[in-house]
Amino acid sequence: MNKIYFNELENYFDKEIELSGFVENIRNLQWVQFLVLRDSTDKIQVTIEKSDESNALMVETVNTLPLESTVKVIGVLKKNEKVKLRGMEFIPTKIEITSKSELELPINIHDKNAQLLDQRLDYRWLDLRSEYNFNIFKIQSDMVRFMREFLYKKDFTEIHTPKLIGAASESGSEVFEVKYFDRKAYLAQSPQFYKQMAIASGYDKVFEVAPVFRAENSNTSRHTTEFTGFDLEFAYINSYEDVMDLEEELLTYTLSKLKEKHGDLIKKLYNQEIIVPENKFPRIKLADLYKELEERYNYKIDESEMNDLTTEAERLSYRYAMDKFNSEFIFVTDFPKDKRAFYHMRKNDVPEGYDLIYRGVEITTGAQREHRYDILLNQAKEKALDKDVEFYLEFFKYGCPPHGGFGLGIDRLTMLVLGLPSVKESMFIFRGPNRLNP
Amino acid sequence: MNKIYFNELENYFDKEIELSGFVENIRNLQWVQFLVLRDSTDKIQVTIEKSDESNALMVETVNTLPLESTVKVIGVLKKNEKVKLRGMEFIPTKIEITSKSELELPINIHDKNAQLLDQRLDYRWLDLRSEYNFNIFKIQSDMVRFMREFLYKKDFTEIHTPKLIGAASESGSEVFEVKYFDRKAYLAQSPQFYKQMAIASGYDKVFEVAPVFRAENSNTSRHTTEFTGFDLEFAYINSYEDVMDLEEELLTYTLSKLKEKHGDLIKKLYNQEIIVPENKFPRIKLADLYKELEERYNYKIDESEMNDLTTEAERLSYRYAMDKFNSEFIFVTDFPKDKRAFYHMRKNDVPEGYDLIYRGVEITTGAQREHRYDILLNQAKEKALDKDVEFYLEFFKYGCPPHGGFGLGIDRLTMLVLGLPSVKESMFIFRGPNRLNP
Repeated sequence: MNKIYFNELENYFDKEIELSGFVENIRNLQWVQFLVLRDSTDKIQVTIEKSDESNALMVETVNTLPLESTVKVIGVLKKNEKVKLRGMEFIPTKIEITSKSELELPINIHDKNAQLLDQRLDYRWLDLRSEYNFNIFKIQSDMVRFMREFLYKKDFTEIHTPKLIGAASESGSEVFEVKYFDRKAYLAQSPQFYKQMAIASGYDKVFEVAPVFRAENSNTSRHTTEFTGFDLEFAYINSYEDVMDLEEELLTYTLSKLKEKHGDLIKKLYNQEIIVPENKFPRIKLADLYKELEERYNYKIDESEMNDLTTEAERLSYRYAMDKFNSEFIFVTDFPKDKRAFYHMRKNDVPEGYDLIYRGVEITTGAQREHRYDILLNQAKEKALDKDVEFYLEFFKYGCPPHGGFGLGIDRLTMLVLGLPSVKESMFIFRGPNRLNP
Repeated sequence: MNKIYFNELENYFDKEIELSGFVENIRNLQWVQFLVLRDSTDKIQVTIEKSDESNALMVETVNTLPLESTVKVIGVLKKNEKVKLRGMEFIPTKIEITSKSELELPINIHDKNAQLLDQRLDYRWLDLRSEYNFNIFKIQSDMVRFMREFLYKKDFTEIHTPKLIGAASESGSEVFEVKYFDRKAYLAQSPQFYKQMAIASGYDKVFEVAPVFRAENSNTSRHTTEFTGFDLEFAYINSYEDVMDLEEELLTYTLSKLKEKHGDLIKKLYNQEIIVPENKFPRIKLADLYKELEERYNYKIDESEMNDLTTEAERLSYRYAMDKFNSEFIFVTDFPKDKRAFYHMRKNDVPEGYDLIYRGVEITTGAQREHRYDILLNQAKEKALDKDVEFYLEFFKYGCPPHGGFGLGIDRLTMLVLGLPSVKESMFIFRGPNRLNP
């Protein structure tokens, strides 16, 4: 393979080379044709003088060349300060079309507002060609890379747990049913049970990056039926404070690396400042948060709603965290047990878990887990789940160290870091109740 | 969190510290109790003198302590050359049981031959506690880490593509059906279509590590209904030789890093030598391979079977590659088109693809892809797939650079690197037609 990437062209002035890329633009003037080629790294102008008779064949090719076709061009790269694009141009001697686009594109790639989001998603492979969309997933790839990097340094083991499971279970949310030969299987709503199994197996520190499935028939900017979960679990903790500490450290590390590598790009394309936390994230009990929101912002809701975070309370907690702590993050703790999963450990009947709110949106639920079989069984019974989760309860019968963990959706995190309006834009290919294509 | 891991105990002699771990063994002698504790990194002996009256409570605790319970122990670490295990022992002043195992374990953790594989898989979380099984997934985690590391260095982008898809398709193999609200969805058999979509979007170099699903009702040592695929695709290649070159480089890098980090452990536990390839992998046409196998090893099969690799031919190709090239790997090319997917590019009607055989087992199918819409459409029609893959064909209508790629199963690769008898042992949790538990 000898593709010369456009971001390394500075090394090739005045040499005969071969370039390949998409044809992003053509200006066909009286005396000259200008093409702009694009690859994943940069752009370059190709200049064809019509007066030069040896260019006749190329000129003809370009005359009927649809935008977004791909070409291979042989020629010489020249410095030319008059060229706005990078002060250089490519003077070709030969153009070969490697793939031909249709003349009319079904969407306008470079103006995302020229069509509805749904139309753009129908043609996602074209939609992703815009600089704006393209870079979302370059950045997301690095974000996950930095998150893994952090965990590798702490000796975490990456595991791959099954998505096909034998029993529908875990929490209240809906689960997809799969026809599995002559019986039924279900798609895992999270790796929760299996990352805890890894702890029972002695793996001490594990994480997984993998799809999770939620059969929720809701169409909001945050919901999707399939997303990429980043889940971790670790053993020998003393309390759920250890879990919050680790998440704090992980996110601080990741934002700091992201800022270093992509801060300028993120500012330019998405108009977002990456703010690297300098202090520990504030931690507040749910009841205290509601008190603060009422006192400070006159936010009043019925007491019956105060057993969970409303969407509006999430949003206001951002304002509160910024006003009081200058923090984009805030941990909310002490939710009532009927709002939390049965496997959260409890102390004085209060779950030892938390939600993490970032820029006004919940990104994580974390907790210390109940690792003692008898207590866990009782908590499952209390929610009438003990039959459904029987296989899971078995994991705790033969010794399992104290442990905790959390999960976050990388698509939602991407949405918030880049300030995108919807998770539909921060997923490579979105899946919702009404969308299974492309 | 302040867990002291057992592999760092050398730093804590003569200090009062707290240790946590599983109770792997107890020897209850007349005058003394010896416990062996285990965490994910190492083991340590705990010694309790019965004659010391202040130990009475601990002695009583240990008397009824089931193996595989987890404990927290406070005490002092002492050098003691008489102790076989690491020449040190821990003298406790307090033992706290953090989780209690049942007295009888359903399987013998430390003797894998004491029960059938199926029984062991029923209790996978216990089965994984053996040193042998435990390390398979420590090594697998690093293997995948090294593979990613190699690709990051080459500027590959990691993508996350949907596993829920709208149409059952791609190849001949069976696909799982999902109840998706009021319609049907299917589980992706590979990220093939979507990694190619990424290429059409301009991502040039992408990879994905994610579950793939195969509804094959077969029970062999290599088959499973769900496994972790490592898939990549890259653009602007000149031929499928580029794809083979990259795979060769990737595997050589990975084996070399694996040998460096785990070579001794792999030798000790699995009796396998990691051999880092020193040369390019041999490449041979299918027909030529059959000729060689007949000439050298008198392997004769009916001509009608020679259009594909038989299991026996795979095995013999290992012998051939070793005999002639001293290579554990061999690329086999020039399969007939009716045995290859419709999206493989063809030259003179022969698919530009390959299988890679490692230690006698196929681990990869790779190819240059057909990126030109008209030709691709014809090839899909030829296999009567054009309706099924209509959405996929669309990706190629608006320009797509030449590209190729391959996929490999990390479970199968793990099995081969460690010389395990079955993929059931190299999967964290195996899934087969008759197995959805735990």
